[in-house]
Amino acid sequence: MENINDYINTNKDRFINELIELLKIPSISADTAFSQDVLETARVVERSLSEAGCDNTEICETKGYPVVYGEKTIDPNLPTILVYGHYDVQPPDPMDLWESPPFEPVIKETKLHPDGAIFARGACDDKGQFYMHVKAVEFMIKNNTLPCNVKFMIEGEEEVGSDSLADFLNDHKDKLANDIILISDTGMMANDVPSITTGLRGLSYVEVEVTGPNRDLHSGIYGGAVPNPINVLSKMIASLHDENNHITIPGFYDKVEALSKEERAEMAKAPFDIEDYKEALDIGDVYGEEGYSTPERYSIRPTLDVNGIWGGYTGEGAKTVIASKAYAKISMRLVPHQNPDEITQMFMDHFQAIAPKGVKVKVAPHHGGLPYVTPTDSIGYKAASKAYEKTFGKTPIPERTGGSIPIVALFEKVLESKTILMGFGLDSDAIHSPNEHFGVWNFLKGIETIPYFYKYYTELATS
Amino acid sequence: MENINDYINTNKDRFINELIELLKIPSISADTAFSQDVLETARVVERSLSEAGCDNTEICETKGYPVVYGEKTIDPNLPTILVYGHYDVQPPDPMDLWESPPFEPVIKETKLHPDGAIFARGACDDKGQFYMHVKAVEFMIKNNTLPCNVKFMIEGEEEVGSDSLADFLNDHKDKLANDIILISDTGMMANDVPSITTGLRGLSYVEVEVTGPNRDLHSGIYGGAVPNPINVLSKMIASLHDENNHITIPGFYDKVEALSKEERAEMAKAPFDIEDYKEALDIGDVYGEEGYSTPERYSIRPTLDVNGIWGGYTGEGAKTVIASKAYAKISMRLVPHQNPDEITQMFMDHFQAIAPKGVKVKVAPHHGGLPYVTPTDSIGYKAASKAYEKTFGKTPIPERTGGSIPIVALFEKVLESKTILMGFGLDSDAIHSPNEHFGVWNFLKGIETIPYFYKYYTELATS
Repeated sequence: MENINDYINTNKDRFINELIELLKIPSISADTAFSQDVLETARVVERSLSEAGCDNTEICETKGYPVVYGEKTIDPNLPTILVYGHYDVQPPDPMDLWESPPFEPVIKETKLHPDGAIFARGACDDKGQFYMHVKAVEFMIKNNTLPCNVKFMIEGEEEVGSDSLADFLNDHKDKLANDIILISDTGMMANDVPSITTGLRGLSYVEVEVTGPNRDLHSGIYGGAVPNPINVLSKMIASLHDENNHITIPGFYDKVEALSKEERAEMAKAPFDIEDYKEALDIGDVYGEEGYSTPERYSIRPTLDVNGIWGGYTGEGAKTVIASKAYAKISMRLVPHQNPDEITQMFMDHFQAIAPKGVKVKVAPHHGGLPYVTPTDSIGYKAASKAYEKTFGKTPIPERTGGSIPIVALFEKVLESKTILMGFGLDSDAIHSPNEHFGVWNFLKGIETIPYFYKYYTELATS
Repeated sequence: MENINDYINTNKDRFINELIELLKIPSISADTAFSQDVLETARVVERSLSEAGCDNTEICETKGYPVVYGEKTIDPNLPTILVYGHYDVQPPDPMDLWESPPFEPVIKETKLHPDGAIFARGACDDKGQFYMHVKAVEFMIKNNTLPCNVKFMIEGEEEVGSDSLADFLNDHKDKLANDIILISDTGMMANDVPSITTGLRGLSYVEVEVTGPNRDLHSGIYGGAVPNPINVLSKMIASLHDENNHITIPGFYDKVEALSKEERAEMAKAPFDIEDYKEALDIGDVYGEEGYSTPERYSIRPTLDVNGIWGGYTGEGAKTVIASKAYAKISMRLVPHQNPDEITQMFMDHFQAIAPKGVKVKVAPHHGGLPYVTPTDSIGYKAASKAYEKTFGKTPIPERTGGSIPIVALFEKVLESKTILMGFGLDSDAIHSPNEHFGVWNFLKGIETIPYFYKYYTELATS
């Protein structure tokens, strides 16, 4: 497969321009104002699959946004790889912090990306990463080096909880039948420290509403005498962590997987510099659960964070008002054995229980997701590891990360196959943040590495 | 002065229509987008003064919005009453809770206003209340019954802290020279329970900004490992009150005026029904400082309330983000002897002191105001009390209220005269809230009562 590098050198400008066109469409699934753009993106993705040489490409309707499907079957007796990705993106706000418009991609050099990085919402999460697979498969088909069968399933609701995917999987079990699932929607430690994500945290996400008086009130006339929903919500949120930053929801930690000394020692070997970490984020100090290191806090430990809060007067100047209502969006990252539905219920019960008598509390669940772990002794993991060794010249480090891809656990349940997470982005690529970007080098390195996974996986699966 | 009632009966439709025209102009001083409307309102107010018969009417420039002036001098040897009011209004949001547009006044009957109430932003606070004085003076001038001299000073920055007024007072001490200041910008207990406000709380208002990481972050990758500014801000706000709802800022209560058992017993005589109060606000329970009754909590005790809070993702759906910044607007109501500048400084020092190492905190002061008390043995108070007795048939109750009119203390300092607060609105008129309104009966009752204050005050002052 020597000529993968030649193929990349000959076509890389086209690859980058195709990705840039894809990034120009604001496929924001969380905001219904952009629904036409999300649908347009699905059409562009289907076209890219057929142009890459896939057969039976199709935009499969769901009760939400469609799933784009495509396949290339060379021999039913050979193994089948199912590639998953998502074409929807996070909302870009806060807009004012973007140095260039989120849907007008530009290539700029950065300290970590001397060959340039593509700046745009979705550049890394996940348009840039799933498109590596489209181009890698294009290479293998065009050069008749595809060693096995491949199927693509690119969805449009990942950023809002993949609500329609469970039904889609159940309705198309045969169509989606596969031996291994391959996803690039995670990161690696550094361009010279390849890593493979073996653990993902689960997610429970709720929206809370606290109502005090039945209308906004003058703080002079009522201040100090009625429950102020903002003060009350602040108190309730504050009480969700104790002085050691342990979460206080009863039962929250009951099923948490406890890692052994040995496992924690193994983790501690991964390169991590606390000073670099603090400097990169410009924080005076890290913050988190007592008794755990920073990498442990964001990978093997469950967490609770407020993702948004609002209430009262937030405009210019000063308004002396006591609001009737205050709101917050709160998410919890879960670790193996914690069940999102159980945790969401625990939160709802607890939040109602701690509300003072003077207020009314509503808690509405958003999407959740199960945690997941990939065994490092599987042939899928071994094939991925060999592919990285071949193109990076180094054995990749198995890594537990904090992010959630809820559907990975769903795949195992419905499609009964394991998932390999080959991520080529960096934590510093600012996914979900202003100025999201994806290194050009990483994009091309992914395209170079993926065909080797196909080669080694087929060899291991058929030997 | 028998014919005041005839004059009102003959002219009340005109009075109401003139007020409605004034209410149609959105003079929102807190929002620069409305600056032209604020200035237009000043012009309309000046015209109303000259049409009422005032001389030397003038729109006096300040570094902020102008002060409208007008006067009627009948004899330099007679006492002079200075009428203060403000033509600016609070922002109307939240707009969606208004049953009719805030700047399209409509008259509707309510349980407490069977003769109808005018619904509009500013109807009671303060356009409707200062306009009673314009019409009362119109009556006295037109009927040659004005017993003393009168001056009007109607400003346009009361809702944003009257920032330009101190300079204006100092620059025009002679022009504004007076024996007593008369203001209708407060309320009374009920239409059949007249009361005169003798105490006003002061105000300290700050805006806080808490910065965690230097950019918004993915809560999966960073959650639990970095200081989340929303969680931190919630914790800091929660810590500003202890378990008894005492404010925890060091020194906050040092200068608080403590009322005697007798004074508190006197206060307790005022009619107050806790069940009606809870029902009117639809709250399961009241909430406030341990050891004090609800009327004490909103009148003689200082308080701290969050007036607005915002940070992170507040749009539709779920975004798994850790915000870089979180904000809150926080105000403190102060009681006699507490100094707003000292309290603001105490807050700023304390808020910095309780911030965890991982975050940066900024505190910006907004406007403040000194508390104020009117002596009930002054001739001004006696004259007001007699005027209410005459038109309500009842002796009014002296009342400490929670609101702040910062400039009342400023008047005493610069103009060296006392202020009488003759309010005709009700607490239920929803000032600063959606659906603000002012009873037609109250509007006309004010016009009827004010001339008697002029009469009795002149008699007492010249006897």
